[in-house]
Amino acid sequence: MSEIYVVKIGGTSGVDVQLICEELVTFINQGQQIIIVHGGSNDANQLGDLLNTPAQFITSPSGFTSRYTDKKTLEIFAMAVNGKVNVQIVSSLQKLGVNAVGLSGMDGRLIEADRKKSIQSIVNGKRKIIRDDYSGKITKINPEMLMWLLSNGMVPVIAPLAISEEGDPLNVDADRVAAELAVAVHAKYLFLFTAVKGLMKKFPDENTWIPSLKTNEVEMGISYAEGRMKKKVLGAKEALDGGVGMVFIGDGRITNPIQNALDGNVTRIGG
Amino acid sequence: MSEIYVVKIGGTSGVDVQLICEELVTFINQGQQIIIVHGGSNDANQLGDLLNTPAQFITSPSGFTSRYTDKKTLEIFAMAVNGKVNVQIVSSLQKLGVNAVGLSGMDGRLIEADRKKSIQSIVNGKRKIIRDDYSGKITKINPEMLMWLLSNGMVPVIAPLAISEEGDPLNVDADRVAAELAVAVHAKYLFLFTAVKGLMKKFPDENTWIPSLKTNEVEMGISYAEGRMKKKVLGAKEALDGGVGMVFIGDGRITNPIQNALDGNVTRIGG
Repeated sequence: MSEIYVVKIGGTSGVDVQLICEELVTFINQGQQIIIVHGGSNDANQLGDLLNTPAQFITSPSGFTSRYTDKKTLEIFAMAVNGKVNVQIVSSLQKLGVNAVGLSGMDGRLIEADRKKSIQSIVNGKRKIIRDDYSGKITKINPEMLMWLLSNGMVPVIAPLAISEEGDPLNVDADRVAAELAVAVHAKYLFLFTAVKGLMKKFPDENTWIPSLKTNEVEMGISYAEGRMKKKVLGAKEALDGGVGMVFIGDGRITNPIQNALDGNVTRIGG
Repeated sequence: MSEIYVVKIGGTSGVDVQLICEELVTFINQGQQIIIVHGGSNDANQLGDLLNTPAQFITSPSGFTSRYTDKKTLEIFAMAVNGKVNVQIVSSLQKLGVNAVGLSGMDGRLIEADRKKSIQSIVNGKRKIIRDDYSGKITKINPEMLMWLLSNGMVPVIAPLAISEEGDPLNVDADRVAAELAVAVHAKYLFLFTAVKGLMKKFPDENTWIPSLKTNEVEMGISYAEGRMKKKVLGAKEALDGGVGMVFIGDGRITNPIQNALDGNVTRIGG
């Protein structure tokens, strides 16, 4: 039976979409089924600047950073991730002969989420409540459409939007999307590709890079992580708790990033 | 057996997406299967203006007008149609309890097209050859994914991008997309909703409105049509030639536009 790999392509500058897509062809030809999840933070920031709506970020009391997404920002975010990044990845894969299908989590209610109607945030050291944010916490995955696509030889490419109970699009963290999807489709591996070698005890000192963490060490991993890396390690925990075999967090800037990860050159979590 | 209606929601200012979506619920509840195709010309123009890349249009020697789509314009067009209009329509339908799925013609190679590598154009009365355009002529529809979605109670919402043989996204005319899809899925009816009452002998004089044309009168209809209406009538001809039962061209600004069309208040073509 073929195994499912969920591959998250980070939206950070430096991550090489083309190199990742090229290597995926090899694994698809070997019979693996692939689901791609992508971010788009860099493109969303650039488009926001061009449209005079520069990105703003908020930090939760527990130290997680996320995009402040009011209605206008959500519209820009959707244009960047659905209309630009997703189209580019689908095109890159189609050029390589892979029959990709671009979707967001809104489509077919693939990813349902609760809107965070009030968000605790730390601004200049002070707590503030934000109420006009359209980001969400994932509550349910409906994977039937993905399973049909996979069994018909297609590769779903998923933009990080979810749908609220009310039918509104919501910004959801792409690492968490990848983790939840990996659980829902019983993926063997989850790869979170970004522009660093993996988790480090003291970021950005690569000498403190962590080659592997056991499942019972993940909480400790979260405490090491800085900024957006926190969500990746949290995603890894969710994936492992949900039955995913192994999670790899690391370098998406290089040739053959999947093999590089399997070879032990990124942070491997699980087991 | 349920019948398939293909409904094209024009991107022209005035067309009321919400009213169309509301009426669709009635027809879905009656057992009809619906495929939506949308344009996005108005949103693409607005985004182009904001990004300092205003839309340019070209006119063919035979009088058809189309968007000049160089690489930059294509990127803007994709953001507007995939990232904005498509998301809005999917959201509107989901709010009404309809399980919509947003796609473009790139996804799963739904709509294959040949890039128009050199386009004859009339600029200030002179012929000019345009070679950097990324618009396409539809060559093939692969409707299997649509049929699966329909048979699973979902409503595909399709943005007017196609995929070239080389894997590039191409701008394709949404009226032609709707017509070709209607043929491929053996639709009973094709509705092309826009901001006028239908075809007129002398546009914009509504006193010259044409209530119906027989299939063998369509060529004459094309000769009456002005501007973008030419493509609608051409789409109608393609649909009828391909076996679609009836085509309705007309008012998408009103409550219950489908019933209004079926009641004979738009231009009905076929039979």
